[in-house]
Amino acid sequence: VIDAPDLAGRIAILKVHAKGKPLATDVSLEKIARSTPGFCGADLANALNEAALLATRRSHEVISQKDLEEAVEKVVAGPERKSHRLGDEERRRVAFHEAGHAVVAASLKDADPVHKISIVPRGRATLGYTWQVPATEQFILSKSALLDRLRSLMGGRAAEEVMFHDMTTGAANDLEKATAIAEQMVCVFGMSEGVGLVHYAHQRPLFLPAIEGDALPRSVSPETATLIDHEVRQILDQAYQDALEILLAKRPKLEAIAEALVARETLDGEELEGMLRPLKADRPS
Amino acid sequence: VIDAPDLAGRIAILKVHAKGKPLATDVSLEKIARSTPGFCGADLANALNEAALLATRRSHEVISQKDLEEAVEKVVAGPERKSHRLGDEERRRVAFHEAGHAVVAASLKDADPVHKISIVPRGRATLGYTWQVPATEQFILSKSALLDRLRSLMGGRAAEEVMFHDMTTGAANDLEKATAIAEQMVCVFGMSEGVGLVHYAHQRPLFLPAIEGDALPRSVSPETATLIDHEVRQILDQAYQDALEILLAKRPKLEAIAEALVARETLDGEELEGMLRPLKADRPS
Amino acid sequence: VIDAPDLAGRIAILKVHAKGKPLATDVSLEKIARSTPGFCGADLANALNEAALLATRRSHEVISQKDLEEAVEKVVAGPERKSHRLGDEERRRVAFHEAGHAVVAASLKDADPVHKISIVPRGRATLGYTWQVPATEQFILSKSALLDRLRSLMGGRAAEEVMFHDMTTGAANDLEKATAIAEQMVCVFGMSEGVGLVHYAHQRPLFLPAIEGDALPRSVSPETATLIDHEVRQILDQAYQDALEILLAKRPKLEAIAEALVARETLDGEELEGMLRPLKADRPS
Amino acid sequence: VIDAPDLAGRIAILKVHAKGKPLATDVSLEKIARSTPGFCGADLANALNEAALLATRRSHEVISQKDLEEAVEKVVAGPERKSHRLGDEERRRVAFHEAGHAVVAASLKDADPVHKISIVPRGRATLGYTWQVPATEQFILSKSALLDRLRSLMGGRAAEEVMFHDMTTGAANDLEKATAIAEQMVCVFGMSEGVGLVHYAHQRPLFLPAIEGDALPRSVSPETATLIDHEVRQILDQAYQDALEILLAKRPKLEAIAEALVARETLDGEELEGMLRPLKADRPS
Amino acid sequence: VIDAPDLAGRIAILKVHAKGKPLATDVSLEKIARSTPGFCGADLANALNEAALLATRRSHEVISQKDLEEAVEKVVAGPERKSHRLGDEERRRVAFHEAGHAVVAASLKDADPVHKISIVPRGRATLGYTWQVPATEQFILSKSALLDRLRSLMGGRAAEEVMFHDMTTGAANDLEKATAIAEQMVCVFGMSEGVGLVHYAHQRPLFLPAIEGDALPRSVSPETATLIDHEVRQILDQAYQDALEILLAKRPKLEAIAEALVARETLDGEELEGMLRPLKADRPS
Amino acid sequence: VIDAPDLAGRIAILKVHAKGKPLATDVSLEKIARSTPGFCGADLANALNEAALLATRRSHEVISQKDLEEAVEKVVAGPERKSHRLGDEERRRVAFHEAGHAVVAASLKDADPVHKISIVPRGRATLGYTWQVPATEQFILSKSALLDRLRSLMGGRAAEEVMFHDMTTGAANDLEKATAIAEQMVCVFGMSEGVGLVHYAHQRPLFLPAIEGDALPRSVSPETATLIDHEVRQILDQAYQDALEILLAKRPKLEAIAEALVARETLDGEELEGMLRPLKADRPS
Repeated sequence: VIDAPDLAGRIAILKVHAKGKPLATDVSLEKIARSTPGFCGADLANALNEAALLATRRSHEVISQKDLEEAVEKVVAGPERKSHRLGDEERRRVAFHEAGHAVVAASLKDADPVHKISIVPRGRATLGYTWQVPATEQFILSKSALLDRLRSLMGGRAAEEVMFHDMTTGAANDLEKATAIAEQMVCVFGMSEGVGLVHYAHQRPLFLPAIEGDALPRSVSPETATLIDHEVRQILDQAYQDALEILLAKRPKLEAIAEALVARETLDGEELEGMLRPLKADRPS
Repeated sequence: VIDAPDLAGRIAILKVHAKGKPLATDVSLEKIARSTPGFCGADLANALNEAALLATRRSHEVISQKDLEEAVEKVVAGPERKSHRLGDEERRRVAFHEAGHAVVAASLKDADPVHKISIVPRGRATLGYTWQVPATEQFILSKSALLDRLRSLMGGRAAEEVMFHDMTTGAANDLEKATAIAEQMVCVFGMSEGVGLVHYAHQRPLFLPAIEGDALPRSVSPETATLIDHEVRQILDQAYQDALEILLAKRPKLEAIAEALVARETLDGEELEGMLRPLKADRPS
Repeated sequence: VIDAPDLAGRIAILKVHAKGKPLATDVSLEKIARSTPGFCGADLANALNEAALLATRRSHEVISQKDLEEAVEKVVAGPERKSHRLGDEERRRVAFHEAGHAVVAASLKDADPVHKISIVPRGRATLGYTWQVPATEQFILSKSALLDRLRSLMGGRAAEEVMFHDMTTGAANDLEKATAIAEQMVCVFGMSEGVGLVHYAHQRPLFLPAIEGDALPRSVSPETATLIDHEVRQILDQAYQDALEILLAKRPKLEAIAEALVARETLDGEELEGMLRPLKADRPS
Repeated sequence: VIDAPDLAGRIAILKVHAKGKPLATDVSLEKIARSTPGFCGADLANALNEAALLATRRSHEVISQKDLEEAVEKVVAGPERKSHRLGDEERRRVAFHEAGHAVVAASLKDADPVHKISIVPRGRATLGYTWQVPATEQFILSKSALLDRLRSLMGGRAAEEVMFHDMTTGAANDLEKATAIAEQMVCVFGMSEGVGLVHYAHQRPLFLPAIEGDALPRSVSPETATLIDHEVRQILDQAYQDALEILLAKRPKLEAIAEALVARETLDGEELEGMLRPLKADRPS
Repeated sequence: VIDAPDLAGRIAILKVHAKGKPLATDVSLEKIARSTPGFCGADLANALNEAALLATRRSHEVISQKDLEEAVEKVVAGPERKSHRLGDEERRRVAFHEAGHAVVAASLKDADPVHKISIVPRGRATLGYTWQVPATEQFILSKSALLDRLRSLMGGRAAEEVMFHDMTTGAANDLEKATAIAEQMVCVFGMSEGVGLVHYAHQRPLFLPAIEGDALPRSVSPETATLIDHEVRQILDQAYQDALEILLAKRPKLEAIAEALVARETLDGEELEGMLRPLKADRPS
Repeated sequence: VIDAPDLAGRIAILKVHAKGKPLATDVSLEKIARSTPGFCGADLANALNEAALLATRRSHEVISQKDLEEAVEKVVAGPERKSHRLGDEERRRVAFHEAGHAVVAASLKDADPVHKISIVPRGRATLGYTWQVPATEQFILSKSALLDRLRSLMGGRAAEEVMFHDMTTGAANDLEKATAIAEQMVCVFGMSEGVGLVHYAHQRPLFLPAIEGDALPRSVSPETATLIDHEVRQILDQAYQDALEILLAKRPKLEAIAEALVARETLDGEELEGMLRPLKADRPS
């Protein structure tokens, strides 16, 4: 497991791979680096090559910031797949689902800002997506930031409930991500009062002078497993309830954004900010 | 795991493989593509080759739509196996079993329309089959669509119960499929209130910047396993009860279709529609 | 897993392998095919070669129906092993055990007819055997057919109880087969009310367009395991009680057949039918 | 897993390997074959070669029955290891332990007759042994024969309790054998009323025409595991109580045989019979 | 598993690797050896080479004690990674977290003295660290030394609670180490009254003359697993409560050290001692 | 698994390897053989070679009994490691720990006599050791001998409790050995009334003529696992309480021996006997 470079590392890598490529004067590699936390070196090289291709296809002599941003998006979410034509009803579903993520995220103090939402199908399985980018590079996450991440993930399913009083298979991926975060909160980060400050996950060897031996390869007792399951469930239930409450309160915004998505397919950070700006002010922290 | 091409992809693939093959003027590759969700490229190529063979065997100079449809059916359900001669009693059993699937599916708002039912044995183990094709290409399934799928699967066993007050080994495959769907509803799609919005299946690595590590390879507690089993059971029990209720109410239709099957072996979508059309109207949604 | 050919297939295979072998005019390959459900191609070839050998050893110029039948029996139950000399007491035990299977099977409406019973030791571990052949080729089995199969399997142990008020290791194989059938009734065929219509066995990948992923590799909860164990046990207990009740009512027949076996070692279908014919009539269905 | 030849087989194998070896006129290969149930062909060849060696070492021109019997014993229990000198106390312990086995076995109707007991250490771990040989070749064992086998196995520990009111590590092997037999009674032979006629051991594929698939690789529920443990425990407890009761009643015989063993190291079947003969008569069956 | 050399061994190894390297007259290899418990030979060689490199880079002709100490630190905690620029808020978090470790450790009689604390990011994942070095070489650890180690590990999370009433992902590594220690106290060192003097971890073969066989590969019962989990949890809960109590009582010291860290990035043992010296006196043992 | 030679075997092996080596007239190879139960041939050869080396290093022309004894000790406990310098407090700890073993062992009727105790560190991890050698070669161990072995093992931790009212990591190895013995008492030797005469450990194939099949690879039920854990715990608790009681009663002896160890590092069997002789007399058996 190699971890991703930090911001400074990403800028340096981008500069290396940009050598010999004609960049437009408006290009800010730092901006690109800020929007790509989690990218490894190969991802960044990939993005620069995609951008060069795009510029060529557009018969531009230099790579513009827009080319770069589209290239990054392709690496993040896969290539567009316009042939993947959803029915009108499905398209509306997806629009409300993504709008739900965006409205919930925008209503929370510690959620990452929404960079873009889209209902253009991409890659193998993406019917729509909500792209969040942290305002600043973060190395430590607070419990409240993790809870806001969970609430945002639950926004998709919650929006479907609010609008259609029904549920679909579309939230499967959100639930998988949310469950993994909640399990780490409980088992790795010591963030659940019920389970306490015990580490219940990786049983790795441990460097301890004068105590011979490795960490024990022990499995938890059934009672502890039940306790962990209960805490994970509580965290997820609460996150969903919070998301639902936010969307019920902001239903007009939700509808406005979803309809805008249906009409325009994609809303970028600024457009969203325009429609959502009043939201944060509404909500006492 | 490579997923199947979508409608547009299937049309494109069919066109490629149809090049150089003499198609009759009535042939609609789109229609073929619509009836083959889940086919991969090799399946489609296979179907076109089978159709060419059929045309040759029939001494036709061009491949007709009928040739293509028979070829698709062979790929879906295996080659006919006329030598597999069932006794009269068994044949009647199979006819009622398939008619049960068809009547239940036709009575439900969100079940896929029945394209064909047959009691011609095919392949290794198929004594009869009910072929459903979705009206439009679907990327997201609602909970009610999944429930209707379960009810349709339970229609075979329910028909045996209604007619013979007895059960056979013939429903084993239906139960296996239904159980897998119910488990996914509960463990992957968050569609059971009792279990809630927790993902209990694949524990895959998860892309989470700033949180080091993989999703935990944890197994659920015995209590949660009991809860999951209970929810899966409830969903399946209810689906069977619903199927049973539908067939008890529509028993004359069930008998008519089963007898028609015994007499003619196969009923296509239009013939079935003729006999079943009033059904949907009967049933308030 | 390749499944066995059906009746038509077996006839065809026998014809292929019979080419060039001199068959007596009385030979009916169809009759041979009827008595060999479950034989694969190699088994059938094997039986024809054994028959040829037998004919040669007997200095016949053609293979007779009797040669063929003995050859089939050798493939079904292994070569005779006359050296395996049981004591008188053990021989009587074995005779009552096999007579128990035969009498129970003959008393049941849905059990396969008994083709032959024998107390000639065969192969590695067979001290006696009861050979049943279905009257017609069957592709679906009803719950009552499975229950009758279980009752027949329990007939051996039940006969020992009735005659000797004691039990031996001789029923181990019967119990293993019976347990496997009962487990499949409960976990695969949905034939137990207590467990319901849930599939609890093979968790195989499942072809489901639009629902990504495989069936879940989930294990059942302890509560469900208990429920399954309970249902399996109930089914087996009941089958044994039924077998016992039948043999208590037909004790004179049981004794007559067992004594005949001790005297003549083997009874074929017709001889048995002669001694047992009144049985079915005795028993209301 | 190849199973051992039966009596006839063993006689035949002995004859083959005896060819060319000078046998004394008193030699009865059948007697040798009777005392070697469970021997495979290689064991029998081995015994004949050992006997030839012994005869040579003794400068005899022919192999005597005595040579053969000693050779068989060496194959059964390993080579003598006179260097293994036990202390007087330990030797007495071992003598009472073996005498316990012998007295219990001799008191039971269905236990195999004792062929020899010895306190000459043999092989790696044998400090003494009790060699039982069935009176006739047996292919089926009754529940009472298995219970008598368990009682005999418990005789060693019970004798230690009766004489020394103490226990040692010397019964470990007896307990292991007894546990395996009791588990098979409960899980394979259907001999426990509490567990019933269910097979809980090897889940082997099963030949069942018309029912597709293998026996299920299912593990038992915790409740069933508890039930099995309970039944196994009951059977073993009872066997020990029975052994204890026998030895308390026959204590003078136990002491006489143990003292004889201390004095003469070995007692053969006839010597034992002489000292034990009245025992069976004492005990109503 | 090769264990690390002891103090004498480390001095000897350092001398070997120092041969031919120009050391300044102030260099004390013993001091270096004292600060490197747990280093293997390769680590020590590594540190000497790093020190030589540092001296060269600084254009010094001899290696100074300072060069050596920096080289040791690099081996302990990884290379500095100044590019890893934390935001102001995160830097303050890390400073309080490390200050928490240091203040708790300094307040305890049996904790190892703090050698240095730093908030210079290092290596892949270290945002700050607290480096403790035992006063004397220790081969046995008392229960109270282990408890003080746990309290010190909990000091980071406790400081975050005291100052920010919030928790972050930053304590994950502390919790993992603390859990491993607590599990060893309970399962290997017999230090929990609830679990008692039973060894529940490695089931290794065991040298025991006259008792044949290995330690049993047995897993603990669910009840024992629950008991172990409970004891581990209690130990960790108590350690955290103790850490919290210490920091609440010493809050001004905590703040002073954290602010000093924010300002100067690093505090060495002597600087810390200056700010912390009164602490031990405050606390009755 | 090859088991170790017995006394006679060890004498024979020593004689073979001593050939050609000049032995002093005082050398008794039998004495050496008596002190090396559990040694394999290679260990004995190793000891003779070490003794020859020692004699050479000491410029003796013959190998003395003392050389041999030191060589044996090196094989038993590893080479001396004088560089491993413990602090005074740790040295005292170790001295009391070893004295605890010795005093408890010497107070018990069935414990092996103490041959030597030492606090010279040896090998990788041995800070001190108590070397017990059985008075006579033993092939069977009584329950009371095993209990005395457990009490002796608990003597180290108990001495620490008596003197320091505190516990350390130093008893880890004792607890591991004691747990393995207690588990074998319960699961292999049938020495616990609660668990009874059931074998719960190695499920090895078993030679049983006429009963086909292997011992079952069954795992115990949770209830039985709990019972086993409980019995093991009881045995260990009681052994510790007994050790504690002995040391509380003999505290002056404990202190005298520990202080002697601190002063002289090593006490051999005779010196110990001198200081401990009155102990056995004190204690009624």
